[in-house]
Amino acid sequence: MELYTTENLADQTILLPPDESFHCIKVMRHRVGDVICVTNGQGRICECTIVQADSRETVVSATSCRDEARSGRFRLHIAAAPTKNIDRFEWFLEKATELGMDEVTPLLCAHSERKVVKDEREEKILTAAARQSLRAWFPQWNPLTPFRAFLQAHQAHDSLKLIAYCGNEYEKKSLRTMLETTHLEQVIILIGPEGDFSPEEVKEAVDAGFIPVTFGSMRMRAETAAVFAAAAAALL
Amino acid sequence: MELYTTENLADQTILLPPDESFHCIKVMRHRVGDVICVTNGQGRICECTIVQADSRETVVSATSCRDEARSGRFRLHIAAAPTKNIDRFEWFLEKATELGMDEVTPLLCAHSERKVVKDEREEKILTAAARQSLRAWFPQWNPLTPFRAFLQAHQAHDSLKLIAYCGNEYEKKSLRTMLETTHLEQVIILIGPEGDFSPEEVKEAVDAGFIPVTFGSMRMRAETAAVFAAAAAALL
Repeated sequence: MELYTTENLADQTILLPPDESFHCIKVMRHRVGDVICVTNGQGRICECTIVQADSRETVVSATSCRDEARSGRFRLHIAAAPTKNIDRFEWFLEKATELGMDEVTPLLCAHSERKVVKDEREEKILTAAARQSLRAWFPQWNPLTPFRAFLQAHQAHDSLKLIAYCGNEYEKKSLRTMLETTHLEQVIILIGPEGDFSPEEVKEAVDAGFIPVTFGSMRMRAETAAVFAAAAAALL
Repeated sequence: MELYTTENLADQTILLPPDESFHCIKVMRHRVGDVICVTNGQGRICECTIVQADSRETVVSATSCRDEARSGRFRLHIAAAPTKNIDRFEWFLEKATELGMDEVTPLLCAHSERKVVKDEREEKILTAAARQSLRAWFPQWNPLTPFRAFLQAHQAHDSLKLIAYCGNEYEKKSLRTMLETTHLEQVIILIGPEGDFSPEEVKEAVDAGFIPVTFGSMRMRAETAAVFAAAAAALL
Protein backbone atom coordinates (compact mmCIF):
# COMPACT_ATOMS: atom_id res chain seq x y z
CA MET A 1 0.00 0.00 0.00
CA GLU A 2 1.25 3.53 -0.72
CA LEU A 3 0.35 6.66 1.17
CA TYR A 4 -0.32 9.90 -0.71
CA THR A 5 -0.29 13.34 0.82
CA THR A 6 -2.19 16.58 0.36
CA GLU A 7 -2.73 19.54 2.63
CA ASN A 8 -6.50 19.74 2.50
CA LEU A 9 -8.47 16.70 3.64
CA ALA A 10 -11.47 18.65 4.87
CA ASP A 11 -13.86 17.94 2.00
CA GLN A 12 -15.06 14.67 0.58
CA THR A 13 -13.60 15.55 -2.82
CA ILE A 14 -9.81 15.79 -2.59
CA LEU A 15 -7.26 17.12 -5.11
CA LEU A 16 -3.80 15.57 -5.16
CA PRO A 17 -0.98 18.08 -5.82
CA PRO A 18 0.93 17.75 -9.13
CA ASP A 19 3.84 15.62 -7.86
CA GLU A 20 1.47 13.29 -6.01
CA SER A 21 -0.82 13.07 -9.03
CA PHE A 22 2.12 12.22 -11.27
CA HIS A 23 3.33 9.49 -8.91
CA CYS A 24 -0.17 8.05 -8.56
CA ILE A 25 -1.09 7.98 -12.27
CA LYS A 26 2.21 7.79 -14.19
CA VAL A 27 4.40 5.82 -11.77
CA MET A 28 1.91 3.59 -9.96
CA ARG A 29 -0.41 3.46 -13.00
CA HIS A 30 -3.58 3.91 -10.93
CA ARG A 31 -6.87 4.23 -12.77
CA VAL A 32 -10.33 5.64 -12.03
CA GLY A 33 -11.96 3.47 -9.40
CA ASP A 34 -8.71 2.45 -7.70
CA VAL A 35 -8.60 2.91 -3.94
CA ILE A 36 -5.64 4.78 -2.38
CA CYS A 37 -4.84 6.24 1.04
CA VAL A 38 -4.21 9.95 1.52
CA THR A 39 -2.95 11.79 4.60
CA ASN A 40 -2.40 15.44 5.51
CA GLY A 41 0.57 14.47 7.68
CA GLN A 42 -1.29 15.91 10.66
CA GLY A 43 -2.97 12.73 11.87
CA ARG A 44 -5.85 12.58 9.37
CA ILE A 45 -5.84 9.65 6.93
CA CYS A 46 -8.52 8.92 4.34
CA GLU A 47 -9.29 5.93 2.16
CA CYS A 48 -10.19 7.39 -1.23
CA THR A 49 -11.45 6.27 -4.62
CA ILE A 50 -9.93 7.85 -7.72
CA VAL A 51 -12.62 9.70 -9.68
CA GLN A 52 -10.36 11.62 -12.10
CA ALA A 53 -7.01 10.10 -13.11
CA ASP A 54 -5.04 13.17 -14.18
CA SER A 55 -1.24 13.14 -13.85
CA ARG A 56 -1.29 16.88 -13.04
CA GLU A 57 -4.36 17.02 -10.84
CA THR A 58 -5.88 13.74 -9.74
CA VAL A 59 -9.26 13.95 -8.03
CA VAL A 60 -10.20 11.39 -5.39
CA SER A 61 -13.32 10.92 -3.29
CA ALA A 62 -12.93 10.08 0.40
CA THR A 63 -14.89 6.96 1.35
CA SER A 64 -13.71 6.85 4.98
CA CYS A 65 -11.50 9.10 7.11
CA ARG A 66 -10.01 8.70 10.55
CA ASP A 67 -7.93 10.92 12.80
CA GLU A 68 -5.01 9.00 14.29
CA ALA A 69 -3.61 9.92 17.69
CA ARG A 70 0.16 10.29 17.93
CA SER A 71 1.81 7.02 18.87
CA GLY A 72 4.18 6.81 21.79
CA ARG A 73 3.95 7.91 25.43
CA PHE A 74 5.51 11.26 24.64
CA ARG A 75 6.32 13.53 21.73
CA LEU A 76 9.98 13.21 20.66
CA HIS A 77 11.92 16.28 19.56
CA ILE A 78 15.55 15.65 18.56
CA ALA A 79 17.83 18.68 18.17
CA ALA A 80 21.04 17.54 16.51
CA ALA A 81 24.02 19.25 14.89
CA PRO A 82 24.16 18.18 11.22
CA THR A 83 27.25 16.10 10.45
CA LYS A 84 30.04 17.33 8.17
CA ASN A 85 29.01 14.57 5.75
CA ILE A 86 25.34 15.41 5.14
CA ASP A 87 24.57 11.82 4.06
CA ARG A 88 24.99 10.73 7.66
CA PHE A 89 22.61 13.39 8.93
CA GLU A 90 20.06 12.59 6.23
CA TRP A 91 20.34 8.92 7.09
CA PHE A 92 19.45 9.88 10.68
CA LEU A 93 16.47 11.90 9.42
CA GLU A 94 15.12 8.90 7.50
CA LYS A 95 15.68 6.34 10.25
CA ALA A 96 14.48 8.48 13.15
CA THR A 97 11.31 9.22 11.15
CA GLU A 98 10.71 5.49 10.65
CA LEU A 99 11.18 5.12 14.41
CA GLY A 100 8.57 7.77 15.22
CA MET A 101 10.47 11.04 15.79
CA ASP A 102 7.94 13.92 15.94
CA GLU A 103 10.12 17.01 15.51
CA VAL A 104 13.70 17.70 14.51
CA THR A 105 15.84 20.83 14.77
CA PRO A 106 19.28 21.09 13.17
CA LEU A 107 21.59 22.82 15.64
CA LEU A 108 24.45 25.22 14.91
CA CYS A 109 27.07 24.55 17.59
CA ALA A 110 30.52 25.88 18.50
CA HIS A 111 32.18 22.80 16.98
CA SER A 112 29.81 22.46 14.00
CA GLU A 113 31.70 21.79 10.78
CA ARG A 114 28.50 22.06 8.75
CA LYS A 115 26.89 25.48 8.93
CA VAL A 116 24.20 25.17 6.24
CA VAL A 117 21.36 22.72 5.54
CA LYS A 118 18.86 22.68 2.66
CA ASP A 119 15.43 22.93 4.30
CA GLU A 120 13.45 21.79 1.28
CA ARG A 121 15.70 18.79 0.69
CA GLU A 122 15.62 17.64 4.32
CA GLU A 123 11.86 18.11 4.56
CA LYS A 124 11.43 15.91 1.48
CA ILE A 125 13.51 13.20 3.17
CA LEU A 126 11.32 13.38 6.27
CA THR A 127 8.12 13.23 4.24
CA ALA A 128 9.34 10.33 2.09
CA ALA A 129 10.34 8.35 5.19
CA ALA A 130 7.05 9.11 6.93
CA ARG A 131 5.11 7.91 3.88
CA GLN A 132 7.30 4.83 3.55
CA SER A 133 6.38 3.89 7.10
CA LEU A 134 2.73 4.88 6.58
CA ARG A 135 2.81 7.55 9.27
CA ALA A 136 -0.28 9.77 9.50
CA TRP A 137 1.85 12.27 11.43
CA PHE A 138 4.82 13.72 9.57
CA PRO A 139 7.77 15.01 11.62
CA GLN A 140 8.07 18.76 12.01
CA TRP A 141 11.24 20.22 10.49
CA ASN A 142 12.71 23.42 11.92
CA PRO A 143 15.34 25.66 10.32
CA LEU A 144 18.98 25.59 11.44
CA THR A 145 19.04 27.10 14.93
CA PRO A 146 22.03 28.43 16.89
CA PHE A 147 22.54 26.40 20.08
CA ARG A 148 21.94 29.31 22.47
CA ALA A 149 18.81 30.41 20.60
CA PHE A 150 17.44 26.87 20.91
CA LEU A 151 18.02 26.88 24.68
CA GLN A 152 16.29 30.24 25.01
CA ALA A 153 13.33 28.99 22.98
CA HIS A 154 12.90 25.97 25.28
CA GLN A 155 13.13 27.39 28.78
CA ALA A 156 9.73 26.14 29.88
CA HIS A 157 9.63 23.03 32.09
CA ASP A 158 6.83 21.33 30.15
CA SER A 159 9.30 18.92 28.52
CA LEU A 160 11.88 16.40 29.69
CA LYS A 161 15.06 18.08 28.45
CA LEU A 162 18.13 15.90 27.92
CA ILE A 163 21.61 16.53 26.55
CA ALA A 164 23.89 13.74 25.32
CA TYR A 165 27.59 14.53 25.25
CA CYS A 166 30.93 12.78 25.70
CA GLY A 167 32.56 14.84 28.45
CA ASN A 168 32.44 14.08 32.17
CA GLU A 169 32.07 17.52 33.76
CA TYR A 170 28.62 16.58 35.03
CA GLU A 171 27.08 13.48 36.57
CA LYS A 172 25.01 11.75 33.90
CA LYS A 173 21.65 10.02 34.23
CA SER A 174 20.76 6.90 32.30
CA LEU A 175 18.81 7.64 29.10
CA ARG A 176 16.72 4.54 29.75
CA THR A 177 15.75 5.56 33.29
CA MET A 178 14.91 9.11 32.24
CA LEU A 179 12.65 7.94 29.40
CA GLU A 180 11.03 5.14 31.41
CA THR A 181 10.11 7.37 34.33
CA THR A 182 8.98 10.57 32.60
CA HIS A 183 5.33 11.61 32.66
CA LEU A 184 5.89 14.73 30.58
CA GLU A 185 4.27 14.98 27.16
CA GLN A 186 7.42 15.91 25.29
CA VAL A 187 11.05 14.80 25.39
CA ILE A 188 13.77 16.99 23.86
CA ILE A 189 17.18 15.42 23.28
CA LEU A 190 20.26 17.44 22.25
CA ILE A 191 22.89 15.65 20.16
CA GLY A 192 26.17 17.43 19.42
CA PRO A 193 28.41 17.59 16.33
CA GLU A 194 31.36 15.24 15.65
CA GLY A 195 33.52 17.42 17.90
CA ASP A 196 30.92 17.22 20.70
CA PHE A 197 29.37 20.20 22.47
CA SER A 198 31.82 22.73 23.90
CA PRO A 199 32.13 22.81 27.72
CA GLU A 200 30.44 26.22 27.62
CA GLU A 201 27.50 24.82 25.64
CA VAL A 202 27.08 21.96 28.09
CA LYS A 203 27.11 24.40 31.02
CA GLU A 204 24.57 26.65 29.32
CA ALA A 205 22.33 23.65 28.63
CA VAL A 206 22.54 22.44 32.23
CA ASP A 207 21.80 25.97 33.46
CA ALA A 208 18.77 25.96 31.13
CA GLY A 209 17.46 22.77 32.75
CA PHE A 210 18.81 20.12 30.37
CA ILE A 211 19.87 16.91 32.11
CA PRO A 212 23.13 15.24 30.95
CA VAL A 213 22.46 11.62 29.96
CA THR A 214 24.65 8.70 29.04
CA PHE A 215 23.85 6.34 26.17
CA GLY A 216 25.91 3.57 27.74
CA SER A 217 29.47 2.43 27.18
CA MET A 218 29.34 2.36 23.37
CA ARG A 219 31.27 5.01 21.48
CA MET A 220 28.85 6.10 18.74
CA ARG A 221 29.11 8.47 15.83
CA ALA A 222 26.94 11.58 16.19
CA GLU A 223 24.25 10.33 13.79
CA THR A 224 24.24 6.89 15.42
CA ALA A 225 23.60 8.48 18.80
CA ALA A 226 20.68 10.42 17.33
CA VAL A 227 19.12 7.26 15.87
CA PHE A 228 19.81 5.39 19.11
CA ALA A 229 17.88 8.09 20.98
CA ALA A 230 14.93 7.66 18.59
CA ALA A 231 15.06 3.87 19.00
CA ALA A 232 15.13 4.20 22.79
CA ALA A 233 12.11 6.52 22.72
CA ALA A 234 10.25 4.06 20.48
CA LEU A 235 11.11 1.14 22.74
CA LEU A 236 10.53 2.59 26.23
CA MET B 1 42.60 8.27 19.71
CA GLU B 2 42.80 5.66 16.95
CA LEU B 3 42.77 1.91 17.38
CA TYR B 4 45.07 -0.26 15.28
CA THR B 5 44.66 -3.95 14.74
CA THR B 6 46.93 -6.96 14.35
CA GLU B 7 46.34 -10.66 14.83
CA ASN B 8 49.21 -11.45 17.17
CA LEU B 9 49.32 -9.56 20.47
CA ALA B 10 51.06 -12.35 22.40
CA ASP B 11 54.56 -10.89 22.51
CA GLN B 12 55.78 -7.57 23.84
CA THR B 13 57.14 -6.66 20.40
CA ILE B 14 54.28 -6.32 17.93
CA LEU B 15 54.33 -5.98 14.14
CA LEU B 16 51.57 -3.96 12.45
CA PRO B 17 50.40 -5.42 9.11
CA PRO B 18 51.16 -3.39 5.94
CA ASP B 19 47.81 -1.54 5.70
CA GLU B 20 47.89 -0.68 9.40
CA SER B 21 51.52 0.39 9.16
CA PHE B 22 50.72 2.63 6.20
CA HIS B 23 47.78 4.25 8.00
CA CYS B 24 49.84 4.78 11.15
CA ILE B 25 52.92 6.26 9.52
CA LYS B 26 51.77 7.82 6.23
CA VAL B 27 48.23 8.92 7.11
CA MET B 28 48.44 9.67 10.82
CA ARG B 29 52.12 10.70 10.55
CA HIS B 30 53.13 8.89 13.74
CA ARG B 31 56.81 8.82 14.66
CA VAL B 32 59.08 6.66 16.82
CA GLY B 33 58.13 7.17 20.46
CA ASP B 34 54.47 7.91 19.75
CA VAL B 35 51.96 5.91 21.79
CA ILE B 36 49.11 4.08 19.99
CA CYS B 37 46.53 1.46 20.93
CA VAL B 38 46.44 -1.93 19.22
CA THR B 39 43.80 -4.68 19.48
CA ASN B 40 43.44 -8.20 18.13
CA GLY B 41 39.67 -7.75 17.88
CA GLN B 42 39.30 -10.62 20.34
CA GLY B 43 39.17 -8.63 23.57
CA ARG B 44 42.89 -7.90 24.01
CA ILE B 45 43.97 -4.27 23.75
CA CYS B 46 47.51 -2.96 24.27
CA GLU B 47 48.98 0.49 24.70
CA CYS B 48 52.14 0.50 22.61
CA THR B 49 55.11 2.74 21.85
CA ILE B 50 56.33 2.92 18.24
CA VAL B 51 59.92 1.66 18.05
CA GLN B 52 60.22 1.39 14.25
CA ALA B 53 58.17 3.74 12.04
CA ASP B 54 58.02 1.82 8.76
CA SER B 55 55.04 2.36 6.45
CA ARG B 56 55.21 -1.32 5.38
CA GLU B 57 56.01 -2.91 8.72
CA THR B 58 55.80 -0.75 11.80
CA VAL B 59 57.14 -2.25 15.02
CA VAL B 60 55.64 -1.27 18.36
CA SER B 61 56.42 -2.29 21.92
CA ALA B 62 53.54 -3.05 24.29
CA THR B 63 53.76 -1.04 27.50
CA SER B 64 50.49 -2.29 28.98
CA CYS B 65 47.88 -4.83 27.85
CA ARG B 66 44.43 -5.70 29.15
CA ASP B 67 41.82 -8.27 28.20
CA GLU B 68 38.37 -6.72 27.99
CA ALA B 69 35.26 -8.73 28.74
CA ARG B 70 32.42 -8.52 26.24
CA SER B 71 30.03 -5.73 27.11
CA GLY B 72 26.31 -6.38 27.40
CA ARG B 73 24.26 -8.94 29.32
CA PHE B 74 24.24 -11.31 26.36
CA ARG B 75 25.98 -11.94 23.07
CA LEU B 76 23.97 -10.55 20.12
CA HIS B 77 23.85 -12.46 16.84
CA ILE B 78 21.76 -10.83 14.09
CA ALA B 79 20.91 -12.96 11.04
CA ALA B 80 19.47 -10.67 8.38
CA ALA B 81 18.70 -10.96 4.68
CA PRO B 82 20.84 -8.42 2.78
CA THR B 83 18.75 -5.69 1.15
CA LYS B 84 18.45 -5.32 -2.62
CA ASN B 85 20.33 -2.01 -2.25
CA ILE B 86 23.54 -3.16 -0.54
CA ASP B 87 24.18 0.35 0.85
CA ARG B 88 21.28 -0.13 3.25
CA PHE B 89 22.64 -3.46 4.48
CA GLU B 90 26.15 -2.05 4.85
CA TRP B 91 24.73 0.87 6.76
CA PHE B 92 23.16 -1.65 9.14
CA LEU B 93 26.52 -3.44 9.49
CA GLU B 94 28.23 -0.18 10.49
CA LYS B 95 25.55 1.00 12.90
CA ALA B 96 24.87 -2.35 14.56
CA THR B 97 28.63 -2.71 15.13
CA GLU B 98 28.73 0.71 16.81
CA LEU B 99 25.82 -0.50 18.96
CA GLY B 100 27.65 -3.64 20.05
CA MET B 101 26.48 -6.46 17.74
CA ASP B 102 28.73 -9.52 18.29
CA GLU B 103 27.98 -11.69 15.26
CA VAL B 104 26.16 -11.24 11.96
CA THR B 105 25.01 -13.75 9.36
CA PRO B 106 23.62 -12.68 5.98
CA LEU B 107 20.59 -14.88 5.21
CA LEU B 108 19.43 -16.18 1.85
CA CYS B 109 15.63 -16.28 2.01
CA ALA B 110 12.76 -17.25 -0.28
CA HIS B 111 12.01 -13.58 -0.98
CA SER B 112 15.65 -12.42 -1.11
CA GLU B 113 16.30 -10.10 -4.05
CA ARG B 114 20.03 -10.04 -3.25
CA LYS B 115 21.68 -13.44 -3.55
CA VAL B 116 25.37 -12.46 -3.28
CA VAL B 117 27.47 -10.49 -0.77
CA LYS B 118 31.18 -9.66 -0.85
CA ASP B 119 32.61 -11.19 2.31
CA GLU B 120 35.87 -9.25 2.29
CA ARG B 121 34.10 -5.94 1.71
CA GLU B 122 31.52 -6.49 4.47
CA GLU B 123 34.19 -7.66 6.93
CA LYS B 124 36.14 -4.47 6.27
CA ILE B 125 33.05 -2.42 7.07
CA LEU B 126 32.60 -4.30 10.36
CA THR B 127 36.26 -3.86 11.30
CA ALA B 128 36.28 -0.16 10.42
CA ALA B 129 33.15 0.45 12.49
CA ALA B 130 34.53 -1.55 15.42
CA ARG B 131 37.74 0.48 15.37
CA GLN B 132 35.81 3.72 15.00
CA SER B 133 33.94 2.88 18.19
CA LEU B 134 37.12 1.59 19.87
CA ARG B 135 35.77 -1.94 20.33
CA ALA B 136 38.25 -4.53 21.58
CA TRP B 137 35.86 -7.21 20.28
CA PHE B 138 35.20 -7.18 16.55
CA PRO B 139 31.93 -8.66 15.28
CA GLN B 140 32.10 -12.12 13.72
CA TRP B 141 31.07 -12.19 10.05
CA ASN B 142 29.61 -15.37 8.59
CA PRO B 143 29.17 -16.21 4.89
CA LEU B 144 25.77 -15.98 3.19
CA THR B 145 23.68 -18.81 4.65
CA PRO B 146 20.44 -20.30 3.29
CA PHE B 147 17.60 -19.79 5.78
CA ARG B 148 16.96 -23.49 6.40
CA ALA B 149 20.67 -24.22 6.87
CA PHE B 150 20.82 -21.45 9.48
CA LEU B 151 17.90 -22.98 11.39
CA GLN B 152 19.53 -26.40 11.32
CA ALA B 153 22.81 -24.96 12.57
CA HIS B 154 21.06 -23.31 15.55
CA GLN B 155 18.82 -26.04 16.93
CA ALA B 156 20.35 -26.00 20.42
CA HIS B 157 18.40 -24.21 23.15
CA ASP B 158 21.39 -22.38 24.56
CA SER B 159 20.27 -19.11 22.96
CA LEU B 160 17.16 -16.91 23.03
CA LYS B 161 15.98 -17.31 19.44
CA LEU B 162 13.73 -14.60 18.00
CA ILE B 163 12.23 -13.97 14.57
CA ALA B 164 10.89 -10.57 13.50
CA TYR B 165 8.38 -10.61 10.67
CA CYS B 166 5.35 -8.66 9.46
CA GLY B 167 2.70 -11.38 9.20
CA ASN B 168 0.18 -12.30 11.86
CA GLU B 169 0.00 -16.10 11.64
CA TYR B 170 1.50 -16.41 15.11
CA GLU B 171 1.05 -14.59 18.39
CA LYS B 172 4.03 -12.28 18.87
CA LYS B 173 5.92 -11.49 22.04
CA SER B 174 7.30 -8.04 22.77
CA LEU B 175 10.98 -7.67 21.80
CA ARG B 176 11.52 -5.57 24.91
CA THR B 177 10.05 -8.15 27.28
CA MET B 178 11.99 -11.00 25.69
CA LEU B 179 15.30 -9.14 25.95
CA GLU B 180 14.65 -7.81 29.46
CA THR B 181 13.75 -11.19 30.91
CA THR B 182 16.29 -13.49 29.25
CA HIS B 183 19.10 -15.07 31.26
CA LEU B 184 20.62 -16.85 28.27
CA GLU B 185 24.11 -15.92 27.17
CA GLN B 186 23.24 -15.36 23.51
CA VAL B 187 20.35 -13.80 21.63
CA ILE B 188 19.78 -14.61 17.95
CA ILE B 189 17.41 -12.36 15.99
CA LEU B 190 16.22 -13.18 12.46
CA ILE B 191 15.39 -10.23 10.18
CA GLY B 192 13.80 -10.90 6.79
CA PRO B 193 14.26 -9.33 3.35
CA GLU B 194 12.16 -6.45 1.98
CA GLY B 195 9.48 -8.97 0.98
CA ASP B 196 9.48 -10.45 4.51
CA PHE B 197 9.95 -14.12 5.36
CA SER B 198 7.67 -16.55 3.51
CA PRO B 199 4.92 -18.20 5.61
CA GLU B 200 6.82 -21.49 5.22
CA GLU B 201 10.01 -19.92 6.56
CA VAL B 202 8.18 -18.49 9.56
CA LYS B 203 6.65 -21.89 10.30
CA GLU B 204 10.03 -23.63 9.99
CA ALA B 205 11.58 -21.05 12.33
CA VAL B 206 8.82 -21.48 14.91
CA ASP B 207 9.16 -25.27 14.66
CA ALA B 208 12.91 -24.78 15.24
CA GLY B 209 12.22 -22.89 18.47
CA PHE B 210 12.35 -19.28 17.24
CA ILE B 211 9.85 -16.98 18.97
CA PRO B 212 7.96 -14.45 16.82
CA VAL B 213 8.47 -10.93 18.21
CA THR B 214 6.96 -7.55 17.44
CA PHE B 215 9.03 -4.38 17.21
CA GLY B 216 6.00 -2.22 17.98
CA SER B 217 3.59 -0.34 15.76
CA MET B 218 6.20 1.31 13.56
CA ARG B 219 6.54 0.12 9.99
CA MET B 220 10.30 -0.10 9.44
CA ARG B 221 12.47 -0.92 6.49
CA ALA B 222 14.35 -4.21 6.81
CA GLU B 223 17.68 -2.56 7.67
CA THR B 224 16.01 -0.20 10.13
CA ALA B 225 14.49 -3.17 11.96
CA ALA B 226 17.94 -4.77 12.17
CA VAL B 227 19.48 -1.62 13.66
CA PHE B 228 16.49 -1.23 15.99
CA ALA B 229 17.14 -4.76 17.27
CA ALA B 230 20.78 -3.88 17.94
CA ALA B 231 19.74 -0.66 19.73
CA ALA B 232 17.23 -2.57 21.86
CA ALA B 233 19.88 -5.12 22.84
CA ALA B 234 22.28 -2.32 23.76
CA LEU B 235 19.63 -0.54 25.81
CA LEU B 236 17.98 -3.41 27.71
